[in-house]
Amino acid sequence: MTALRVSKGHGTENDFVLLPDLDGELDLTPGLVAALCDRRAGLGGDGVIRVVRTAAAPGDAPAGPEWFMDYRNADGSLAEMCGNGIRVFVAYLRREGLVSLADGASLAVGTRAGVKQVRRDGDLLAADLGPWSVTDGTTSVAVPGEPAGLPGLGVDVGNPHVVVALPDTDALAAADLTRAPALHPVPPAGANVELIVPMPPADGVGHLVMRVHERGSGETRSCGTGAVAAVIAARAWAVEGAPDEWRVDVPGGRLRVRVEPGAVRSGAHVELAGPAVIVADAVVDTAGLSSPAAAR
Amino acid sequence: MTALRVSKGHGTENDFVLLPDLDGELDLTPGLVAALCDRRAGLGGDGVIRVVRTAAAPGDAPAGPEWFMDYRNADGSLAEMCGNGIRVFVAYLRREGLVSLADGASLAVGTRAGVKQVRRDGDLLAADLGPWSVTDGTTSVAVPGEPAGLPGLGVDVGNPHVVVALPDTDALAAADLTRAPALHPVPPAGANVELIVPMPPADGVGHLVMRVHERGSGETRSCGTGAVAAVIAARAWAVEGAPDEWRVDVPGGRLRVRVEPGAVRSGAHVELAGPAVIVADAVVDTAGLSSPAAAR
Repeated sequence: MTALRVSKGHGTENDFVLLPDLDGELDLTPGLVAALCDRRAGLGGDGVIRVVRTAAAPGDAPAGPEWFMDYRNADGSLAEMCGNGIRVFVAYLRREGLVSLADGASLAVGTRAGVKQVRRDGDLLAADLGPWSVTDGTTSVAVPGEPAGLPGLGVDVGNPHVVVALPDTDALAAADLTRAPALHPVPPAGANVELIVPMPPADGVGHLVMRVHERGSGETRSCGTGAVAAVIAARAWAVEGAPDEWRVDVPGGRLRVRVEPGAVRSGAHVELAGPAVIVADAVVDTAGLSSPAAAR
Repeated sequence: MTALRVSKGHGTENDFVLLPDLDGELDLTPGLVAALCDRRAGLGGDGVIRVVRTAAAPGDAPAGPEWFMDYRNADGSLAEMCGNGIRVFVAYLRREGLVSLADGASLAVGTRAGVKQVRRDGDLLAADLGPWSVTDGTTSVAVPGEPAGLPGLGVDVGNPHVVVALPDTDALAAADLTRAPALHPVPPAGANVELIVPMPPADGVGHLVMRVHERGSGETRSCGTGAVAAVIAARAWAVEGAPDEWRVDVPGGRLRVRVEPGAVRSGAHVELAGPAVIVADAVVDTAGLSSPAAAR
């Protein structure tokens, strides 16, 4: 038996296996990642976050920050970034006492998408996911359950999104996301698709309800960059005076998005805030995991 | 924070949160069970198995065995039995050194369905899931993706099953189990539905491939009583000379079923054997779990 110390955490039910490897001593193979993320034969998660010092992650990690978020998708492949993942990463560093973060203070975190700032805002952790931009042109989106192709707006938040507005929450609930919505034209690298219903603003704060279909994962309970893309699209569609701060209700909870005032088509900054929870610490018997070949 | 020590294990990817409470000191509420089984906000599992001494489980546990398997469904409700769960339960007792079980020896385990025998067979654990019986009459099963209602055979293994034979593995793969197959007449307590494809026997051992839709859970990667029901139905359908030993391939792995020779319509014994693995030991921060009201 090889015992592997890990933790499990989530941000609005985007969940992760946190793997402390502070000094970069582990050989984290795609097979081991997939076996850990297997929800029935392993521990289960949307991805693995290896927690490693920048100095011990040569090649991958941008210079500057002490800590590097080494994010892996559940299938074992490398990923650049994860908006909920980076918030859970910082929650873990705090709980372990590896960083101290006063209320209002920020921490620079290295990712494969560059250095990102994560700020503590009371009980929430807020990550700057900029830069972002709205894509020119409209994509036709065939949402299963809807009668015709709907106009979708492309938004780039480091990864590609297409956002579609539905008329009401009944239509949102009825949408069948067991299959990927068909996009025309097909984006070269695919896209996450956000179905949103804008709600009346309250006290100057925007509000929308959202479901998301992620490339390669299917419907998920939350997507941080998706929430940001949804707000950017809703602001771009508004005639004028759209709020800069929004709350976004996803199946897994509530997120807050703040866009820099005045920016409509592109911007350098956009902040995603929400809860980040460490649920359990575990010791995994890697000999008991399914072999990489058997991992489904 | 309240720290709860648990383990996670599975049998052919039917997975469970094992909760040691040897002396019956825990207040295991439905809300806590549901929160532990939540696959994104909790640890995740098809159910919780509380490990408790019979002497500390008054009211629930049958007299005789030292240990009682207190099984709870993922929604927090009580359940009588679980064919893969009882095998994982014994694997846990063995690993903890709470029982010793020589190869070939049996252990009596208390369940809400009475006392069950679990036998060690090399690396496998084999549970006697009898008594069983074939139900009179035929149920018409509308399998989504199949053109017409198919004849289903009812089998009782302590819980109710309806078994349907499909012509080949292509039809099995194409069946849509995201919805429950419709049954006519509707069984009073519902039923698990097994879709099976009999394969040629090899060396006198029967073989079938199976997918299962469980009442209240949807499609799962394995169902122990379902594998038993599938073999009983395949034997009942065979003209003559059907094997007594079968291997059953489910999405989560391979099981072995042995029926007592000569019994076709009912019997006192039927043995389900397969692997049972303890994957991880964990400490859960119950304060970090979703509240029962928020548990989805």
